[in-house]
Amino acid sequence: MKYSILINSYTGHTAADFSLNNIAATSGRLDLVIRCIIATFYGNSHLRKNVDFYAVLNGPPNPPKVIRINGRKIKVLPNTEKEMARILYDILKGKEVSGFTLLNFSFSEILKNLYLEKYKFIYIIERGNDISKVNFSEKEKYLFILGDQKGLNKNDENILKKYNAKEVNLGPISYLTSHCIVILNNELCKKMIVNNDIYAGGGI
Amino acid sequence: MKYSILINSYTGHTAADFSLNNIAATSGRLDLVIRCIIATFYGNSHLRKNVDFYAVLNGPPNPPKVIRINGRKIKVLPNTEKEMARILYDILKGKEVSGFTLLNFSFSEILKNLYLEKYKFIYIIERGNDISKVNFSEKEKYLFILGDQKGLNKNDENILKKYNAKEVNLGPISYLTSHCIVILNNELCKKMIVNNDIYAGGGI
Repeated sequence: MKYSILINSYTGHTAADFSLNNIAATSGRLDLVIRCIIATFYGNSHLRKNVDFYAVLNGPPNPPKVIRINGRKIKVLPNTEKEMARILYDILKGKEVSGFTLLNFSFSEILKNLYLEKYKFIYIIERGNDISKVNFSEKEKYLFILGDQKGLNKNDENILKKYNAKEVNLGPISYLTSHCIVILNNELCKKMIVNNDIYAGGGI
Repeated sequence: MKYSILINSYTGHTAADFSLNNIAATSGRLDLVIRCIIATFYGNSHLRKNVDFYAVLNGPPNPPKVIRINGRKIKVLPNTEKEMARILYDILKGKEVSGFTLLNFSFSEILKNLYLEKYKFIYIIERGNDISKVNFSEKEKYLFILGDQKGLNKNDENILKKYNAKEVNLGPISYLTSHCIVILNNELCKKMIVNNDIYAGGGI
């Protein structure tokens, strides 16, 4: 089983116009995106290389943009917010960073691309089915889609419906997006170890 | 079931001598402690009021110190690292912040106090038993103890042995300390909802 994670930020800035000394207040909450990146890739002693991450940014001044992170191509990934913010800053300035790509895609366009790449879509939402009871096929590719601090709007939820996204929840309460990713990685890791689904590209 | 979380930071600074613009590099990784605080108390739409949090700080210049956070007494809790760092900065300067207390206790001393308060100790460590198979009694109080980025040293592990701390793990791989807390809260929340263990002090 291969999986990727996508978050849709309605406010995240789409240019390097924010202060590295005050990320949360000046970047349209790119600090949330940063914590999601850390949650996606960081184990305690290793980077999780078998995951890709997408952040759709819809904030000013040049929306939409997608930051794509290819886990297998990451060379260095900081685990502090400020250092990670500097990488996003560089990417948004057009610099090259191994594993990171800046795309001029909208939420709808990146989903279309990933659908064509044969991803099955899973929408993480409180009203969904309990993830521990969902069966994932070892042969499929899954894209887990999460909203930002305000969740997805109706329009974007309708796009997911068009792709028959399955609605899944992670537990009995609601969580911060980055915390969702921590729980999601843990649940998937448990399922994969149960299934003996070990990757050529490195253990999870 | 009542529970508290304690982390032991060997490097976290014990005075307001760090830069709020460069927390990770100047505070002995108090950024980790901050992420643990956010993980402990933040649901998406609510603060988790039924938990207390302890951070033992062993870094320069005045170790040891313990920052105690009483969930029920928190009035405001920021969810950005920088704003949370400012609270720790204020506490370490001796200012009063509702819900926060600075204590001149060591790891050993705070454990002794909590033991006398009838807490049962649970040490979160990879070699422990799977948490999903551990039974927690609704009538007990539990203290979950976690190490920092380097884990607990032998000396501190021996202190835990003295108190018959039970060793428990959260999943098949190792995690960042703050991610452990996210998973721990989720697991306990599931268990408590299964047990219908609803608090007078507010839902989890």
